[in-house]
Amino acid sequence: MLLGPGDDAAVLRAPDGRVVVSTDLLIEGRHFRRDWSSGYDIGRKAAAQNLSDIVAMGAQPTALVVGLGLPGDASADWLDALTDGLADECALVGASVAGGDIARSDTVVLGVTALGDLAGRAPVTRSGARPGDVVAVAGRLGYAAAGLALLSSGVAGPEEFAAAHRRPVPPYACGPEAAALGATAMLDVSDGLVQDLGHVAAAAGVRIIVDPATLPVPPAMAALAADLGADVLEWVLTGGEDHALAATFPPEVSLPPAWRVIGQVAEAAGTGGAVVEVPGRAEAPGGWDHFRG
Amino acid sequence: MLLGPGDDAAVLRAPDGRVVVSTDLLIEGRHFRRDWSSGYDIGRKAAAQNLSDIVAMGAQPTALVVGLGLPGDASADWLDALTDGLADECALVGASVAGGDIARSDTVVLGVTALGDLAGRAPVTRSGARPGDVVAVAGRLGYAAAGLALLSSGVAGPEEFAAAHRRPVPPYACGPEAAALGATAMLDVSDGLVQDLGHVAAAAGVRIIVDPATLPVPPAMAALAADLGADVLEWVLTGGEDHALAATFPPEVSLPPAWRVIGQVAEAAGTGGAVVEVPGRAEAPGGWDHFRG
Repeated sequence: MLLGPGDDAAVLRAPDGRVVVSTDLLIEGRHFRRDWSSGYDIGRKAAAQNLSDIVAMGAQPTALVVGLGLPGDASADWLDALTDGLADECALVGASVAGGDIARSDTVVLGVTALGDLAGRAPVTRSGARPGDVVAVAGRLGYAAAGLALLSSGVAGPEEFAAAHRRPVPPYACGPEAAALGATAMLDVSDGLVQDLGHVAAAAGVRIIVDPATLPVPPAMAALAADLGADVLEWVLTGGEDHALAATFPPEVSLPPAWRVIGQVAEAAGTGGAVVEVPGRAEAPGGWDHFRG
Repeated sequence: MLLGPGDDAAVLRAPDGRVVVSTDLLIEGRHFRRDWSSGYDIGRKAAAQNLSDIVAMGAQPTALVVGLGLPGDASADWLDALTDGLADECALVGASVAGGDIARSDTVVLGVTALGDLAGRAPVTRSGARPGDVVAVAGRLGYAAAGLALLSSGVAGPEEFAAAHRRPVPPYACGPEAAALGATAMLDVSDGLVQDLGHVAAAAGVRIIVDPATLPVPPAMAALAADLGADVLEWVLTGGEDHALAATFPPEVSLPPAWRVIGQVAEAAGTGGAVVEVPGRAEAPGGWDHFRG
């Protein structure tokens, strides 16, 4: 950071002559609840969601700027905790909060923008998947959805999943790693695995076939789904907000252990076009995005 | 723009190896009203407010990214108009909208982040004012405050001022121009001239003396103030949202016509410290920021 908070704007290094930028708006009641999440966790989550978009391009995050809408009932301690959460999540990737803006609002609103540096690499977009590539994921799938179901049910259950809803754990290092390994396409799983892979399929005009037997389903998640009468594979296939990374790689690439192969890229079928198929799973009425909030 | 909307993040040129970044949050009912301003005007104003922060550093704006919270009652036409307003304001400075995010919200919320390029120049911060410098402004003072008073009064009056409240007209070209001329400090007048000059005085540890006789007061504004029983100089001295630029320059600099000298920088007085003085005007109870919304 060359010039930090306190002026009209911050000035940041952009060492390779380009800057990667992504923005998200997080709104109380839609993206978080103050009775379910602490200010600290909301800060961590808001930062994580945006830093994850930067690493999904294969870039290293450098900074966040944050616009904060704050209601009169939010205390200075709550604001401090939020600020600490933003800063601590940034610190995980060597980034920092470079500036911001505070406005009065009826509910808490966060407008978070993340910036990053590609270190000379080409950005990994959504559109480069080629037939024959493997599809792999790094990070968690279904944890936040399981946590949301648990918190919504009001019953007691494993804290691990409630914590995953409050604060994702994106596999930050895996983004630049995938770019260096030659990933052909990559994105951040924020809307659900199948829906987000659908963006990759559509952008490249290919078909993606996910093998459900390869999807990671922790026993505790399966047990929680059974307790709640939920379909655990639905959480894994359609749950967002864990900010896993999904990427396609040429088949000859040797993947490090953080990456798990879960499918293949194939030519688009004549009539079906660019789609995601999960053999043995029927697409729900309304499509794979019916589960979104 | 190297990679535009549609991926996890955009990739922008940062030709001089640095990027200038500023963010603001605009909230319906606080910063604009949909019954007073069209979607198009709200887009223009949201973009203008952020682009102005970039030029106030002496930089050229390159791009905006926008997070938009949208209530269910906002129509597609309204959204199109907002988007057009953002794009048209960006086009004035050769910038463009590089990406965004839309979320459902109870009221309209805009999280706008602007980026810019310093073209090899040093950023013009708030802290460089030196005793002996002149203080100058470019752009309008008091127009938006006059317009807000007019709209709030419900009476008919000059459309010029209501329009200025709906959509500021920042003097974009004057920012990089001032940097090239050797401005020692600069900022965007968004909270009111006296309050914002107070930031310059505090950052540099100096005293700023504004000569009220040099302040531009259009006759139509004076007439409107008389009609509404308002103090026209109060609008000029404390009204924000016109996004004029205020800067300090060494006294030997020959200023182009867009800049008007309105005061001087002096040594901080022994007991008074870093302050802004307006001879002949008493500071209102609560200080110069008592007029803010």
